[in-house]
Amino acid sequence: MSNNSVESNEMDLIDHTHDPARRSWVQSANGHSEFPIQNLPFGVFKQGGRQRGGVAIGDQILDLDAALELGAFSGDVVDIARTASLDRLNKFMAMGKEASTSLRSALSELLSEHNPNAGKLTQALIPQSDASMQLPCDIGDFTDFLTSLPHTDRLGRLKGLAEPVPAAFKSLPVAYHGRSSTIRVNGTPVVRPTGQWRRADGKLVCAPVESLDYEVELGALIGRGNELAVPIPVGQAQQHIFGYCLVNDWSAKGIQWFEQILGPFLGKSFMTSVSPWVVTSQALVPFRSPARVRTDDDPTLFPYLVSEADLASGRLAVELSANLRTAAMREQGAPGRRVNVSDLQCMYWTFAQMLSHHTSNGCSLRAGDLLASGTLSGETPDSMACLSERTAGGTKPLDLGNGEVRGWLLDGDEVVIEGHAHKAGFVSIGFGSCGGVVKPALYKD
Amino acid sequence: MSNNSVESNEMDLIDHTHDPARRSWVQSANGHSEFPIQNLPFGVFKQGGRQRGGVAIGDQILDLDAALELGAFSGDVVDIARTASLDRLNKFMAMGKEASTSLRSALSELLSEHNPNAGKLTQALIPQSDASMQLPCDIGDFTDFLTSLPHTDRLGRLKGLAEPVPAAFKSLPVAYHGRSSTIRVNGTPVVRPTGQWRRADGKLVCAPVESLDYEVELGALIGRGNELAVPIPVGQAQQHIFGYCLVNDWSAKGIQWFEQILGPFLGKSFMTSVSPWVVTSQALVPFRSPARVRTDDDPTLFPYLVSEADLASGRLAVELSANLRTAAMREQGAPGRRVNVSDLQCMYWTFAQMLSHHTSNGCSLRAGDLLASGTLSGETPDSMACLSERTAGGTKPLDLGNGEVRGWLLDGDEVVIEGHAHKAGFVSIGFGSCGGVVKPALYKD
Repeated sequence: MSNNSVESNEMDLIDHTHDPARRSWVQSANGHSEFPIQNLPFGVFKQGGRQRGGVAIGDQILDLDAALELGAFSGDVVDIARTASLDRLNKFMAMGKEASTSLRSALSELLSEHNPNAGKLTQALIPQSDASMQLPCDIGDFTDFLTSLPHTDRLGRLKGLAEPVPAAFKSLPVAYHGRSSTIRVNGTPVVRPTGQWRRADGKLVCAPVESLDYEVELGALIGRGNELAVPIPVGQAQQHIFGYCLVNDWSAKGIQWFEQILGPFLGKSFMTSVSPWVVTSQALVPFRSPARVRTDDDPTLFPYLVSEADLASGRLAVELSANLRTAAMREQGAPGRRVNVSDLQCMYWTFAQMLSHHTSNGCSLRAGDLLASGTLSGETPDSMACLSERTAGGTKPLDLGNGEVRGWLLDGDEVVIEGHAHKAGFVSIGFGSCGGVVKPALYKD
Repeated sequence: MSNNSVESNEMDLIDHTHDPARRSWVQSANGHSEFPIQNLPFGVFKQGGRQRGGVAIGDQILDLDAALELGAFSGDVVDIARTASLDRLNKFMAMGKEASTSLRSALSELLSEHNPNAGKLTQALIPQSDASMQLPCDIGDFTDFLTSLPHTDRLGRLKGLAEPVPAAFKSLPVAYHGRSSTIRVNGTPVVRPTGQWRRADGKLVCAPVESLDYEVELGALIGRGNELAVPIPVGQAQQHIFGYCLVNDWSAKGIQWFEQILGPFLGKSFMTSVSPWVVTSQALVPFRSPARVRTDDDPTLFPYLVSEADLASGRLAVELSANLRTAAMREQGAPGRRVNVSDLQCMYWTFAQMLSHHTSNGCSLRAGDLLASGTLSGETPDSMACLSERTAGGTKPLDLGNGEVRGWLLDGDEVVIEGHAHKAGFVSIGFGSCGGVVKPALYKD
């Protein structure tokens, strides 16, 4: 499964759709929007009782169905746009990168301020505030990786492990299978789970978990998949990533710590949140940068994990943050407290390495599968992307600055993750929101 | 989530469909068939280019579509049979137990030797040898449990663990999420995976794995699911199990041992085999028996895992075996060697406990989800249901009796799992086959 394919450096793919001078006739897209014309993320929304695909532009959604009816697309793009307008993006994702590149290019022209036919296209716009966003696709399998070296090291030390970072961590991207049935979109409340966990005094109880945590992650959604038994070389991995979304891997740490013999199970499976807009790989091309430089302390990698193109452009310049807003803050009309900001520099592995390793045993990926980064904690306290680290397992509560402190999440707390890609010379793009409010446990035992 | 629902002892549900005197006009179903009229398992087959649902009877399949066209069903059962005739069983499974009980009852009459209209129904029969069996349903999530106490204890000792059976094992049913995309039906070859593993000399290599193993398991397929955040009480769990199939959890032990920080990943995700016919919970009612009796050595269970009905009838009298046939045996026309026989007495937990625990944190199950038992190894050498145990991690090869020995599976080896439910006074029923041949690795590094 060595990589002997023709590779392209992703950064060579910067084109007119990324031009910072490009503006849209949708005025809200110009200025400081998360969804400028350089972004064009795909998603699925419900409005007027019908669920269908659309594209975010400023504070609006371009309804692909309506745009098709207006005859906005021509040539091969008609079929692609029709596929992207379905009630789930899976079939569009499965068409591969060529299809999404063509549609993106057409959309960039349609929404450009220079489009002479912009007038009638306004009929295909729906205010985001009038629509209810859905999961963008059926997520067949959800894989969660462990890629942040500081996160792994810190939690290993917290647990008192003799070897905080296990040998395998630097030899391959460690991962586990997550639960697909409980992935929910931004805005879905998370109900505090009940389960078995050890109290501080060592007694095992079955009760609503106290140690409820959030974990800030970035997730890659698969486009074209691979056949069973046929690995995807690391140099071709980018061709199989449709785009990215934000992930909050809600965790009940007490349950996880007690149950974990074969990995996380009920400690994580009660819910996982994702953002609804899928920012395409194409939109992120300008924000690619060289992968982490390996040092003499790092073991030599097996060839299947090494690609020149990935080394040159395997990392994304994306910054993620979490905002914690308590019930008291909401009552006071306060905006909440940004509890962490981190970027992908903490990732020991690139998404291409994660994807290629995932398939290296012949495992097949399907369109819509989710591969998440694991908690993206950096070196500094402010970059710790979960409370487990930030509060040292709940023992050193975080001061929220309004008289409240948090060791773990309390009922009524709302956590909203945001993400942005920045690079000098390019228009910044955003990922929208991935948030949810903690609801009290429904069952006490 | 305590269990305060009205419970019924499953064994009270024995009815005319289980009558041992009942015979079918399909002659091959009478005598020693795995699929007598008392079984009536559902499956999905392809014949004449079209995929659809059917029922096994003797060496035939009753094509539900054809039977519907012949007007074989009446009343409410028409809709149920139509749903069961679709190209996947998920919608039928989601209809719940009442629906499958009604259809089973109608099928038992239709296929009975006393059916006066049997003549024209012969047109709806298709020889199993003319059809290609498919996966019975879309398996949204696959959960693999660890329920055999002897298996857990033996592997713990093999690894030299200070605590071979971890505390959590006896307090809750331990499980991990498996990979859904690589579940394949009986007959699909398994390709030896390549990956990172440590050789006996301690050197880490990336190569085709030598320690390829089979693991004999029984899997429950979910019928009606549950909403997010709403656990299923243990006393109601049986209402959510549509039926059972055989599972071979192929494992690349070397890969698993090296990678396993957050549980099994590439060591298992290359393929999992299942049998195509789903033996319904209803067909297995006569084979229910009291659950394992807990002793003073066992910890007291939390109430959510305890139900009188489950204690009374929570175990299935099912015997599973694996047959290993090497390439040499096939060349010689030899039938292969039965390498293990075990039953469900080794299970520390019942399927009802596994299902209820799975949902105890609010995790939702969907129709078609698979919950497997984990390796069903008993106390004796002959009942060790994988080579890891039988050969002490490959160090004490098994004598196959024809001059060949096996520490692990070699290319060309075929493993076929079979299962049968037996009880005095009832007609035995079978599960069909769950098999596959080992193919050489496609990639060497």
